[in-house]
Amino acid sequence: MRTDIERFFSPSSIAIIGASQDLVTISGQPLKHLLSHGYKGKLYPINPKYQEIAGVKCWPSLAALPETPELALILVNASRVADMLTACGEKGVPYVIIFSSGFSETGGGGVAMQQQLAEIAQRHNIGVIGPNCQGMINAADSVFAGFGSVFNADYPTGKVSMVSQSGGFGFSVMNLSSLDGGLPFRQMVTTGNEIGVSTLDFMDYFIRDPHTDIIGTYIEGVKDARRILELGDRALAAGKPILMWKVGNTEQGQKAAASHTANLGGAMALYKAAFRQKGIIQVEDIQDLVDYGRALNSGRLPRGNRLAIITISGGAGILMTDEIVARGMQMAQLAPETVAKLREFVPAFGSLGNPVDVTAAIFNDLSLINRTLQAINDDPGVDCIAMINASLQGEIAQKVASEIVAVAAKTDKPIFISWSARDAVAPDAYAALDAARIPHYKSPVRCGRALAAVSWYAEATRRNAAQQDDRPPVISRPGAQSRLEGKTGDVAEYAAKQVLAEYGIPVTREELANTRDAAVAIAQRIGFPVAMKVQSADISHKTEARAVRLGIAAAADVAAAFDEIMRNAKAYKADARIDGVLVQEMVGGGIEAIVGVTNDALFGPAVMFGLGGIFAEVLKDVAFRLAPITPAIAREMVEEIKGYPLLAGARGKPPADVDALVDALVRLSALAVDLQQQVAELDINPLLVMPRGQGVKAADALIRMKG
Amino acid sequence: MRTDIERFFSPSSIAIIGASQDLVTISGQPLKHLLSHGYKGKLYPINPKYQEIAGVKCWPSLAALPETPELALILVNASRVADMLTACGEKGVPYVIIFSSGFSETGGGGVAMQQQLAEIAQRHNIGVIGPNCQGMINAADSVFAGFGSVFNADYPTGKVSMVSQSGGFGFSVMNLSSLDGGLPFRQMVTTGNEIGVSTLDFMDYFIRDPHTDIIGTYIEGVKDARRILELGDRALAAGKPILMWKVGNTEQGQKAAASHTANLGGAMALYKAAFRQKGIIQVEDIQDLVDYGRALNSGRLPRGNRLAIITISGGAGILMTDEIVARGMQMAQLAPETVAKLREFVPAFGSLGNPVDVTAAIFNDLSLINRTLQAINDDPGVDCIAMINASLQGEIAQKVASEIVAVAAKTDKPIFISWSARDAVAPDAYAALDAARIPHYKSPVRCGRALAAVSWYAEATRRNAAQQDDRPPVISRPGAQSRLEGKTGDVAEYAAKQVLAEYGIPVTREELANTRDAAVAIAQRIGFPVAMKVQSADISHKTEARAVRLGIAAAADVAAAFDEIMRNAKAYKADARIDGVLVQEMVGGGIEAIVGVTNDALFGPAVMFGLGGIFAEVLKDVAFRLAPITPAIAREMVEEIKGYPLLAGARGKPPADVDALVDALVRLSALAVDLQQQVAELDINPLLVMPRGQGVKAADALIRMKG
Repeated sequence: MRTDIERFFSPSSIAIIGASQDLVTISGQPLKHLLSHGYKGKLYPINPKYQEIAGVKCWPSLAALPETPELALILVNASRVADMLTACGEKGVPYVIIFSSGFSETGGGGVAMQQQLAEIAQRHNIGVIGPNCQGMINAADSVFAGFGSVFNADYPTGKVSMVSQSGGFGFSVMNLSSLDGGLPFRQMVTTGNEIGVSTLDFMDYFIRDPHTDIIGTYIEGVKDARRILELGDRALAAGKPILMWKVGNTEQGQKAAASHTANLGGAMALYKAAFRQKGIIQVEDIQDLVDYGRALNSGRLPRGNRLAIITISGGAGILMTDEIVARGMQMAQLAPETVAKLREFVPAFGSLGNPVDVTAAIFNDLSLINRTLQAINDDPGVDCIAMINASLQGEIAQKVASEIVAVAAKTDKPIFISWSARDAVAPDAYAALDAARIPHYKSPVRCGRALAAVSWYAEATRRNAAQQDDRPPVISRPGAQSRLEGKTGDVAEYAAKQVLAEYGIPVTREELANTRDAAVAIAQRIGFPVAMKVQSADISHKTEARAVRLGIAAAADVAAAFDEIMRNAKAYKADARIDGVLVQEMVGGGIEAIVGVTNDALFGPAVMFGLGGIFAEVLKDVAFRLAPITPAIAREMVEEIKGYPLLAGARGKPPADVDALVDALVRLSALAVDLQQQVAELDINPLLVMPRGQGVKAADALIRMKG
Repeated sequence: MRTDIERFFSPSSIAIIGASQDLVTISGQPLKHLLSHGYKGKLYPINPKYQEIAGVKCWPSLAALPETPELALILVNASRVADMLTACGEKGVPYVIIFSSGFSETGGGGVAMQQQLAEIAQRHNIGVIGPNCQGMINAADSVFAGFGSVFNADYPTGKVSMVSQSGGFGFSVMNLSSLDGGLPFRQMVTTGNEIGVSTLDFMDYFIRDPHTDIIGTYIEGVKDARRILELGDRALAAGKPILMWKVGNTEQGQKAAASHTANLGGAMALYKAAFRQKGIIQVEDIQDLVDYGRALNSGRLPRGNRLAIITISGGAGILMTDEIVARGMQMAQLAPETVAKLREFVPAFGSLGNPVDVTAAIFNDLSLINRTLQAINDDPGVDCIAMINASLQGEIAQKVASEIVAVAAKTDKPIFISWSARDAVAPDAYAALDAARIPHYKSPVRCGRALAAVSWYAEATRRNAAQQDDRPPVISRPGAQSRLEGKTGDVAEYAAKQVLAEYGIPVTREELANTRDAAVAIAQRIGFPVAMKVQSADISHKTEARAVRLGIAAAADVAAAFDEIMRNAKAYKADARIDGVLVQEMVGGGIEAIVGVTNDALFGPAVMFGLGGIFAEVLKDVAFRLAPITPAIAREMVEEIKGYPLLAGARGKPPADVDALVDALVRLSALAVDLQQQVAELDINPLLVMPRGQGVKAADALIRMKG
């Protein structure tokens, strides 16, 4: 796989295979756009029908070219693409964009044709982009290698590089962001069917690209989803935020899964887990992308999540407060010294709380803006500042902007501005803020959201730094692997819990009885009362089969229960293979949790945590993380669910043993990694979380084998 | 209270009290703005210092004017406002805007000064707007009666009228919406401290105003909140949607309440209940207001919530699908005939599902746009249509717009367009859509949200029409009222349940025992097992006092329990007034619900429904409605909570008696109305909901009296 992607974005020469003299058509447009935007390299249109196109010499074939182009664009019909790609291979072309449609997206024969292209690309080590894509724009080097109306525009060069799986819409995003949004892009590439260089490969490159500061992605789905973790780690380390727009979130008709964990862990749950684990900022619209991108473009990250708001409009202050508190930030508590400084000049009808309402009177003496900002900036309890200027416009607007810029130059705390004047009436003020990379927004809501996104990212960066020496424990248990060797389908409770026990996850005391006498003896060893359950890989629904008895208090009852359970199990399913009857201690008094593993085809092993059946199943109140996880991450999972107060001791109950729960999650994660070749899904349901100091206990478990 | 508010918005003459010759100052601006925008009525600046201002004759006093102005603007210092308002009253001025600050917003003496203004206004029947506000713009009649930089702009006249409690920010909204957002306003007024004409009064007027089609409001809080219901009803009947931006949603430090219901029913919960009950559309940013306003401006409401999407970009189609499904709409199932019609011309690599991906090939033959739209429009399973045009621009864009307009003219189904071309490159296309009132948005996300808002409103309209003959039952129980007569503080379980029983809400069988012998006799009448609980208005936490015993199975145990409970209760609180020990049937097997009443100071009585303690308390999974409610509304409440599947029969359990639950909620609502003078809060916790056909039963209850 090629990784010298800088050659793709800045090729010294480009061949356009199937170039048309009709510059309006898809196959005519790339040459036109490359020429009109002043591409500096050599252009080789290829079409045996023409001598020249738009004044550029046209060549009969790739083979006829005097040099090897660094990039080829293929614009011919689907049926002829394979031949052209082979010619590229033979000529030694490193990168090829295949624009043509008619491959896997059409199903049927297109799938096989696409497979053929992948093989040609691999054989010749060609980095293929596409097929069925819309090309690339490198604004910095004026490489407009694609088609579509957005290629007509000129773009300023910015520090955002973006890769999109949607062609038409992806370029719309660049167009609106760069030209109307104030967030110029450096590069934009669309990947189509991704037989070669993928979205993740481009992200990988953008992390390495010294000219890219912010990475944008628009994805419908990726093949090697687990790689997102590694990319996320490297992006965090490089200080390059990733803005990810993941679409296709409505899970419709998910495949039937045996476990709650797999049922709850749809693709989106795992994507979100990956984003959470690696500080990848999720965006949901063009506006988000632009707003968050401009915020990150300031290059400043707050040290904490405490915001001070300065406003001349009470209403707008409330609005921003609502927004940032709902998104996990805090309103800073101003120090008494700060309040004392402000009291010197804020009018009596203002407010010295936070939001600080300085009232419009501040504009009577512009030096007060400087004093206010400076006083609040100097407060050690303030991590970032937002100033709300309502619709201020005209000459005074420019002066206010200058004061803001002056204070901002002397601090590294983020200063954000909510300013609702239209662009047309405060152009100089906005230009001054833009030049100083001070983010500004038309509404307090958008300003608050952007602040919260940056604060969230900053927290992820800090968390990552703090946790970078944490290593998830590795537990290898060949015993467990061999115990599961050759098993298929569902592994029932007793065997599943023996596997859990190997990884140090506490399970109920229990033994398997094959006769009534054995059952009685086991019960006496364990102590009364006991539970008894049939064990059969063929009977998943033991209760429905009336093959479960709880709270059995005496030896005679154990014997009777053994007979009854065996009788009912056989009546329920005559040919069920029955391993015996499990005799088990009765455990009570804990809070029912459900924890599990899902081994996703794209993401690999992930762990899940939720509370009791209803919380998880009905309310979907669960947390996912990709394995392996550290204790710190396990604790985040536990504290993340809405039902957490129940564990912390809500409703007068004693706090639960969260430490033991965290330990069990970490061990389960190690198990998930160790057994990932064998285990498809695993549920512990319930895991009883006892009061603090009394541990946890797996009361029931199920493993579904792969394949 | 004056209601002839059309005189306020279109006065034939305006006095400006305290007008300044310095036209830049706050007191100088109103005259300048009125003049520069060409106000057509008579202007009377009043200031004894000047002969004229800006070429307009200036008068020494209001009394000196040759006529009674229809509107006066007061711009003097706070201390002089009362005298000027009195002068207005004596002259017979119907409406006065008081711009001056320094009243209740400053606390202290300002509160008393404001009270004085209110008395003057009432004495003279003056409709006062303000104090502490920023005035009004009536774009239709060129009345710019206020100050601020947004008054410099000229505004087109639209059909949106808005009232805002925030001055500075409110006018920013008008400015951005009318000029950059494509949603022109007709009128905008800010209300400040609202001593006279309130936000709700203006909403009332806008419902009556024949020139207003859409009503916008920005509120921090209103005094007579219950009036929102009546206004909502009338607005629905008039077909005028209300877009409401309610800020201050972060409940911080709410007052301690005795009941769960009151604790959970913060102001925002009740506002949301009112919005839900009356189809008031909540907005959360300027963009929402503009997007939803432009959607409603189309004048079309879908008959149902089934959307068909036509797209040339697969990615954008997914994006919109995500958005509308998450917001309660459905993707339409296209009829076989529709699919057959489309198959005639949609290319093989397109998609005939929904979204229908017609691919960019459709632009090769523009008549296909017409055929596609027409075919989908004719499908009876489609209620509304969205078309996604990516970044289409230039000459072809205009032609595509014409085709859309032609089809839209022949149907009354809403047709929305997602079109990401910048304004600068598709001006004619956008103008054509605007002229035909076809809403268009720059992103599929915004288009989807606007569609969902309109669909939600349309559903509220249908529901209101369907339910308009439903009358909530009225239950009057003088017996209950006299039973509560003179009570204060908390009313304990036994007495509270007797009140419930009067309204036909089933309660557990129970009697109060004052001696151990009486307790035994009662237990024998009720049948074993029984529960026993101390009854004392001084002991709210019976369990904590160890004064509750459950599952008592024999007469001897009843006697012992009686003694123990009395002993523990006295040990817990020596001076507690003890009514006796309640002997109660044990009820099991139902699902625990919590239902209640909160009698809010602003909204009046409201009912609450949620499931078991944890669901309501920890997860806040509750539904509120303002009382009285009909059975249909009670059923909505029950079905609205996330835990509803538990009642419907999740996890293999039988479905619960939802009919009985609905009946109990309706009766509770009738109780809340009947006893609203006496009851502050009421909890039934738990209300046991038995399996279908077996009813509900209040197992515990608490009433907190008013005052």
